Amino acid sequence: MPGPDPRVAAIRSAVTAAVVDLPDDALVLVACSGGPDSLALAAGAAFAVPRSGRAARRRAGAVVVDHGLVAGSDEVARRTAGTCRALGLDPVLVVRVQVDGPGGPEAAARDARYAALEAAADEHGAAAVLLGHTLDDQAETVLLGLARGSGARSLAGMPAVRGVLRRPLLGLTREDTLGACAALGLEPWHDPTNAGAPGDPLRSRVRAEALPTLERVLGPGVARALARSAAQLREDADALDHAAAELLATARAASADSSDRSSDCSSNDGPDEAIDVRLDVATLVGAPDAVRRRAVRSAVVAAGAPAGAVHRVHVLAVDALLTDWRGQGPVHLPGSRVARRACGTLVVGPDDEPATDEPNA
Amino acid sequence: MPGPDPRVAAIRSAVTAAVVDLPDDALVLVACSGGPDSLALAAGAAFAVPRSGRAARRRAGAVVVDHGLVAGSDEVARRTAGTCRALGLDPVLVVRVQVDGPGGPEAAARDARYAALEAAADEHGAAAVLLGHTLDDQAETVLLGLARGSGARSLAGMPAVRGVLRRPLLGLTREDTLGACAALGLEPWHDPTNAGAPGDPLRSRVRAEALPTLERVLGPGVARALARSAAQLREDADALDHAAAELLATARAASADSSDRSSDCSSNDGPDEAIDVRLDVATLVGAPDAVRRRAVRSAVVAAGAPAGAVHRVHVLAVDALLTDWRGQGPVHLPGSRVARRACGTLVVGPDDEPATDEPNA
Repeated sequence: MPGPDPRVAAIRSAVTAAVVDLPDDALVLVACSGGPDSLALAAGAAFAVPRSGRAARRRAGAVVVDHGLVAGSDEVARRTAGTCRALGLDPVLVVRVQVDGPGGPEAAARDARYAALEAAADEHGAAAVLLGHTLDDQAETVLLGLARGSGARSLAGMPAVRGVLRRPLLGLTREDTLGACAALGLEPWHDPTNAGAPGDPLRSRVRAEALPTLERVLGPGVARALARSAAQLREDADALDHAAAELLATARAASADSSDRSSDCSSNDGPDEAIDVRLDVATLVGAPDAVRRRAVRSAVVAAGAPAGAVHRVHVLAVDALLTDWRGQGPVHLPGSRVARRACGTLVVGPDDEPATDEPNA
Repeated sequence: MPGPDPRVAAIRSAVTAAVVDLPDDALVLVACSGGPDSLALAAGAAFAVPRSGRAARRRAGAVVVDHGLVAGSDEVARRTAGTCRALGLDPVLVVRVQVDGPGGPEAAARDARYAALEAAADEHGAAAVLLGHTLDDQAETVLLGLARGSGARSLAGMPAVRGVLRRPLLGLTREDTLGACAALGLEPWHDPTNAGAPGDPLRSRVRAEALPTLERVLGPGVARALARSAAQLREDADALDHAAAELLATARAASADSSDRSSDCSSNDGPDEAIDVRLDVATLVGAPDAVRRRAVRSAVVAAGAPAGAVHRVHVLAVDALLTDWRGQGPVHLPGSRVARRACGTLVVGPDDEPATDEPNA
């Protein structure tokens, strides 16, 4: 007896691995747009989820999100739901969302979609919602991250697991999902914007232009290499963010201790004290640059500076108060915040004179 | 009196900042190929180095390396040396190198060049050799690393300082150096391979095709974002490598302690013991993935596996012996090495049966 098509088998294996830790009676939902990635995933989940775990008590269902952004989207959703039911998924939910959130149409559609998926999981008691993002999507996300910012976190792509959401196909390619659909006789719907997320023209240009150029120049392994880089950078960012959070907590506690003891360098008793972040300099200076600068960034944001406005140049200026201390003046920060060093403490809080441009003392 | 062209001024400032810590009577050499980056750097150093420090006792010279790879390279070197002398640099050395080292023509040329620069610095007692790499070179290096699929270290680009070598222009662009040359009336030599390093066709295609496409698709800030990422990823790699080295030392010491105490799980007394790396599993499992996996990689290399042959798939297989332990069999590794877990210890050493393909027990 021949086994299934190898691409079908690979998707089933990926689903099995992604649900291995769930309860034996879990309901697993697949977020299905009808496109090749999520359709292949839906077929894989319909087969593999009930066969995973003990006693065949796990169930697979689907959620089809209708963004309502283009004419006929309700018809696409209805047909996709029919396909999901024919695959044996149950329940199959169709959820119409309102895309009107902040941050541009792509971000708004994504936020609305994820909120709907999480609500559906909650309502139906699902243990996980599987998303069809592939290695190619991950490579695109890394390149998009390049354009947005810098550092490990912005190059780390999408996580395999975040809350109830899971991405079993990050190790497989779009070619795999197309092949699996073909092998199963499934006809995927092709989004006319040619993008994973409805209405994401930048991503579709990365897919159509940037990645093919990179593959041509650097060789055919680029997408896989970008995805591999993302996985390693995510690990790095997780470890360093964790270390930075611990350092920040220790430095805040040490500052509270020292201001309890000190008399001439006592804590500010003014009305701003509640939102001042106070950190013990001695605790911070011994940490590695990567950890200390992450802690500095968190402190600046905790003090009220808008996260998106705090750039590396701000972090380095505050960090210089710690490691290159020459008695320099306060560092003015976005969101009318200021950092200053006094009596072995770094204080970040509201800026009383945000507009002045006086030379540092 | 008008000041100098802003790009000329920026290069002079960058040189001044890069030599600030050198002795007051230091000799600083500029590695000059005659291309726009190193020519602008040579001009900047000729102006700024003698004016930096106290009492104008610092001196700037140049080293022109002739790789002898293309016909007429000696003539290019001779002309470049003449330009350097006209800029007031002294001494100006022309060094012919033999490019025949291992690792492909690009790596061999780079190794020969750096060896010649370090030898010149040594011979003439120079405190630093300045290299003309710009932000654009750095962006290319990061993109090449991303496409190789490796971790933070290979994405960290070129360091600003390594030994005697310094790169003052990593914050400035190729446009800046071209503009500075034009403002000073200097005619740079344009390498016909259009690459920073002689004979690096991949880099020159990244420069000519990949980065322009990314800039067109993602926006004009890509090169700067890549260079900024490099600086942050270098910090990350430094911190995590350091933590991994500490973890490895602790896990080795803990393994030695436990084998001292244990009787039924005693250390292997065979002839291979000297090159076995033995690590305490309990010490390793509590560490973050990013740190533990770096420690695992170091252990595998310390046990004799060739560093270049140890890929992420090997590291993850050995790591599974620690964090996903189901009694699985040994993991065969490059260089005829094997990792196995027994009695709470991970042992990496010579593989007695490297060719067998038996199923894991």
